[in-house]
Amino acid sequence: MGVITLTTDLGHKDFYQAALKGSLISELPDVRIVDITHEIPAFNIPRAAFVLANAYHYFPKKTVHIIGINTLFHEGSRYVAMKYNDHFFVGADNGIFSLLLNGQQPQELVEINLIQDLRYLHFPLADILTKSACHIAKGGKLTAIGNTIDQTVEKVTLQPIFDNDTIRGNVVYVDAFGNAITNISKELFNRVQKGRSFTLYFKRSETITNLSWNYNEVTEGEKLCLFGISNFLEIAMNKANASQLLGLFDDESHIIRIEFHN
Amino acid sequence: MGVITLTTDLGHKDFYQAALKGSLISELPDVRIVDITHEIPAFNIPRAAFVLANAYHYFPKKTVHIIGINTLFHEGSRYVAMKYNDHFFVGADNGIFSLLLNGQQPQELVEINLIQDLRYLHFPLADILTKSACHIAKGGKLTAIGNTIDQTVEKVTLQPIFDNDTIRGNVVYVDAFGNAITNISKELFNRVQKGRSFTLYFKRSETITNLSWNYNEVTEGEKLCLFGISNFLEIAMNKANASQLLGLFDDESHIIRIEFHN
Amino acid sequence: MGVITLTTDLGHKDFYQAALKGSLISELPDVRIVDITHEIPAFNIPRAAFVLANAYHYFPKKTVHIIGINTLFHEGSRYVAMKYNDHFFVGADNGIFSLLLNGQQPQELVEINLIQDLRYLHFPLADILTKSACHIAKGGKLTAIGNTIDQTVEKVTLQPIFDNDTIRGNVVYVDAFGNAITNISKELFNRVQKGRSFTLYFKRSETITNLSWNYNEVTEGEKLCLFGISNFLEIAMNKANASQLLGLFDDESHIIRIEFHN
Repeated sequence: MGVITLTTDLGHKDFYQAALKGSLISELPDVRIVDITHEIPAFNIPRAAFVLANAYHYFPKKTVHIIGINTLFHEGSRYVAMKYNDHFFVGADNGIFSLLLNGQQPQELVEINLIQDLRYLHFPLADILTKSACHIAKGGKLTAIGNTIDQTVEKVTLQPIFDNDTIRGNVVYVDAFGNAITNISKELFNRVQKGRSFTLYFKRSETITNLSWNYNEVTEGEKLCLFGISNFLEIAMNKANASQLLGLFDDESHIIRIEFHN
Repeated sequence: MGVITLTTDLGHKDFYQAALKGSLISELPDVRIVDITHEIPAFNIPRAAFVLANAYHYFPKKTVHIIGINTLFHEGSRYVAMKYNDHFFVGADNGIFSLLLNGQQPQELVEINLIQDLRYLHFPLADILTKSACHIAKGGKLTAIGNTIDQTVEKVTLQPIFDNDTIRGNVVYVDAFGNAITNISKELFNRVQKGRSFTLYFKRSETITNLSWNYNEVTEGEKLCLFGISNFLEIAMNKANASQLLGLFDDESHIIRIEFHN
Repeated sequence: MGVITLTTDLGHKDFYQAALKGSLISELPDVRIVDITHEIPAFNIPRAAFVLANAYHYFPKKTVHIIGINTLFHEGSRYVAMKYNDHFFVGADNGIFSLLLNGQQPQELVEINLIQDLRYLHFPLADILTKSACHIAKGGKLTAIGNTIDQTVEKVTLQPIFDNDTIRGNVVYVDAFGNAITNISKELFNRVQKGRSFTLYFKRSETITNLSWNYNEVTEGEKLCLFGISNFLEIAMNKANASQLLGLFDDESHIIRIEFHN
């Protein structure tokens, strides 16, 4: 039984999500459908990439991930299917694929050519993307539904800046618990840290000097930083909402600065 | 494997939705359950009809659709199972069936008689409706669980008014993106339009004179009208919330007027 | 096919819920996963116990219920699997098990020892609890994944106080419809009532003197009390939000008093 996941901005109150699921079941009756989330803010491609990048690898290899963000046809639109890390991704070529790849190379990349005239698709998500996902979930080849292409639309998100002793990053996501997740990866942190102690500065006067392993290593309500489930540095509080209490939002203007001590 | 969909006002935080799903799985272990939505506003029968009418046809024929709105017993209550367009619907006879039929004839219509004394049912949704839906999903006949009836409770929603040159309708639904969906169907629009150009008037001074095919045919933030996924005329904006920005809510007092030009 | 239910505070917008489901499917490809709710308020163990206690028995026997509340490791943490009423429950030993048992004895109780060093678990919910639940769902024995223990962490919630003629309780849960559910069970009510008439007092001057069977036995907007789906006394209104209109919240300071008449 193939697994298809859904990452969309469709919400839960309308009939759109049901239309998508009904289309999938009509096409492939024994498919297993799993919601990643339907609560991506409308049209927010970087957010969809962040959530999906952090979720997809928990699923079995060969899972097909449908990306339902900005899928409407416009002049020059195309729809893409990609194999990457032995998972499959289908969506509109709106920049999401470059964000998911984050500089890596895909195993396969095709422009979907299942439908001749895309202009007349009212709901591509429940049509061309659904059909493509079911084809792949059944074990079909990407090249049977599209032509191999070299690259997709490039989209860039804010990247951390670093030198030998400093990393400057930003909060890019605040989760439902108020944990403020930055764009500073564990790999980058380790590479610059080289085992040294550090001071993390944010919000003018706040500092953190310890890297915690778990949220509850400090007293309740105390701030901490850690690499959580996402592999990116988080600023959090033990059983409290760090985002609200410390004023940390996903805001490009505010800098998180880490200085490593010599 | 039978498919059963759920359209309810039960929400996601309480134990009621789980009670319903647990009851279905206990009755029919390999049933596939799909949520249409659990976010119908409490007791809002027209809203449930609108969402379900726009969603059900995406599912395979023979799907059973449970309608979990206003299902509590009261003096004179009855529960109904209906076959229509080769789909099955079960719910309380509270007007929802007439709204779904919208003047059409059902293929079959029965009053469910599975349970003798309905007065002692605390949670009919997780009892008589669940049992009925599972019976049908297993391929059972409607006449095995009820007596054929001729008609259900009539409920009427606001209908558009039209003559040779004009249609007057209302916004009946605002989706999560802020698209304002009217009660003016594509069929009615085409029948009155007869290929003519038109002006759509709303909110005193707003006008639209083009019928778009897709949301992104106008510049971002610009208003448009189109027949979207629902087959009803929508007033929308490209990547913006038309409902909020134009003050369009599902409000019977406000008229959307289309004048066709001679 | 085993059934695993989920009761968590993970919400719907982040990638955590997907990580949990992906882990389950990776471990046990044909498992059926059912959400009880992911909308428990963060870290609210009594709320999780209330919702799960009212939902689990609708599922088939042998269902495995994962409790995803306060599962992070801390010094002295342990994870528990329990058999009770022929259902299985897995979670952190944070008091939830004593609340579910409510004074009853479990059929089996083990401390899970699947993983040697719990300190390095970043996401126990998607690791040790997932593996344990899948083991049980496949029909594995509790004693194969843990050592039998005698008791779990005790947690106590507010209990009603009663004598021969009076019960004093509290509202402990307000559902999405605004029904205010108390901690006064049907069993306690019947035991003290002994068939007598009564007056229920709340909010200083409000009284109810009839026990209804159904919400719609009074006129719309009128208050009533009844034993609903939860088996606990509810104060409700027919098609109106009793919590908001009567000012009834889950607030320990406010007393619901029932006086039985001699």
